[in-house]
Amino acid sequence: MEISEIGEFGLIDRLVRRARRRELLVGVGDDAAVMDLREKIVLTTDMLVEGDHFRTDWSTPVRIGRKAMDSNVSDIAAMGAVPAFAFVSICLREGIDVEFMDLLYSGMYEVAKRYDIDIAGGDTTHGAIVVINICIVGTVERPVLRSGASPGQPICVTGPLGGSRAGLELLLAGRTDGPREAIEKHLDPGCRMDVALEIASVAASMIDVSDGLASEVNHICDMSGVGAEVDASAVPLAPSTLAAAELLGADPLQWALGGGEDFELVFTANEGRLAGLKVPYTVVGRTLPASKGRWLVRDGKKKPLAGGFDHFRK
Amino acid sequence: MEISEIGEFGLIDRLVRRARRRELLVGVGDDAAVMDLREKIVLTTDMLVEGDHFRTDWSTPVRIGRKAMDSNVSDIAAMGAVPAFAFVSICLREGIDVEFMDLLYSGMYEVAKRYDIDIAGGDTTHGAIVVINICIVGTVERPVLRSGASPGQPICVTGPLGGSRAGLELLLAGRTDGPREAIEKHLDPGCRMDVALEIASVAASMIDVSDGLASEVNHICDMSGVGAEVDASAVPLAPSTLAAAELLGADPLQWALGGGEDFELVFTANEGRLAGLKVPYTVVGRTLPASKGRWLVRDGKKKPLAGGFDHFRK
Repeated sequence: MEISEIGEFGLIDRLVRRARRRELLVGVGDDAAVMDLREKIVLTTDMLVEGDHFRTDWSTPVRIGRKAMDSNVSDIAAMGAVPAFAFVSICLREGIDVEFMDLLYSGMYEVAKRYDIDIAGGDTTHGAIVVINICIVGTVERPVLRSGASPGQPICVTGPLGGSRAGLELLLAGRTDGPREAIEKHLDPGCRMDVALEIASVAASMIDVSDGLASEVNHICDMSGVGAEVDASAVPLAPSTLAAAELLGADPLQWALGGGEDFELVFTANEGRLAGLKVPYTVVGRTLPASKGRWLVRDGKKKPLAGGFDHFRK
Repeated sequence: MEISEIGEFGLIDRLVRRARRRELLVGVGDDAAVMDLREKIVLTTDMLVEGDHFRTDWSTPVRIGRKAMDSNVSDIAAMGAVPAFAFVSICLREGIDVEFMDLLYSGMYEVAKRYDIDIAGGDTTHGAIVVINICIVGTVERPVLRSGASPGQPICVTGPLGGSRAGLELLLAGRTDGPREAIEKHLDPGCRMDVALEIASVAASMIDVSDGLASEVNHICDMSGVGAEVDASAVPLAPSTLAAAELLGADPLQWALGGGEDFELVFTANEGRLAGLKVPYTVVGRTLPASKGRWLVRDGKKKPLAGGFDHFRK
């Protein structure tokens, strides 16, 4: 069905489900949403752009919807916060039909439901490409910041890195015969809200991996005023990432350091507190005094820790 | 300067000014913002798309920035709420340089400063076109909803309508020799936050004009369960709108009813409360019992009240 058959308001009626959270006083259908959260609120917003963050010929509307929501929930997770409401702005283009939107929203709702998030508003418009902006509001008691690290803390990650970039490289190279798991990781990366609150209860600093481990550790160093040493041999890489690297003749460690969109969590904590943490994690390095610098140790050699993904750097 | 010379984080550092509001506990530079508002919060989000909402050959970066911020503040105004924080997501394309971004942000900050809004976060990415999504969070004690109207209330507007569409039609027709005021109204419409709180203290229902008077009155009717009669002869039209209509051989009333982006406020109120209102307004009609329907009265003839702007209807 073409969207012009039902119009903007018909589309909104069709897509938006009834909100369930009692903190929502006014939802879809007015000029703005009203919420009574009575706590410190946390807010994040992330924009996904067709051609840059997703391609409709590589992915499916359901996966695009899940990735859009997960990438936003990931930022809430990285604060040690609890998501509550999502606001979805979408720019549509010619060729996007009602069925596409149904599936996109079903992907978003799948993630929203998992974390008890209501979609409570947004905006729908059109243009030359599909753009999805999601804003998530949540609550937080004690946010875990990038600035909380001290020298001498283990640097930990919640899971394998570089997989999302491995999948992207396979797709760019047209090697869809490559390891499916890597391609799936790129198209549908998920996020680590499942372990975020438990980690938040012990972590000194935390950030999610959206631009690669090197970039995220550098953010923690910048904001905390510490240095860092990352041990290349400790960085967890999935077998599918290693297989993709083998296939493409690439260095999988570079994907982990600078690939981005893995949406695992990177955190530091005091040794004593870390001992009590029940969720799986891998120690990949240690924070240092700022004066000691930031290093990657690989094969016994020290190199400056660099290589985060930047949308604008060539 | 090309953006690639300073990168994403360099761009953010350059553009984002220091936040001033003490309710902001964590701002730009972490995964999400943290606010301690301790009140009911109001949130709106609006997406402006190059080619659809603005064109860089018609407008200037400063005006585009002002319009993006004003169109969002307008939704907060329409709730009778007070804006506090803005979150700006931007998709850039090739050809957008650092100077463009400086000017775009200076336009946004101009409006933000006027209403004591801090820009407290956002996202910067790139794609084939420029897309600006702003999310504004504010506080509200008693929100004025679209659903608050009762039969028998005057329907009021805060200023002339149709001007933004008049300007758009002049630009589309290449008639830049047409009345400059109309073109300015399209490129830089402003918003009515200046009178919103005073109106909110007496209004029963309120909405901003983003899709045209007919569309907005229909929203109030839908949400309040009332009918309405709009008097065509009472709808305020600026002299520049009349001049543009004359030049293009168009009906200026249709621009007022279905043009959109005027960002004036439409509200209803009990007669008694309205009498105490000090800000200028024009009565353009009256709400009716739902069973009486929704009408436009023009030259003594009644026609169904229709004609709101819909991005997706052809």
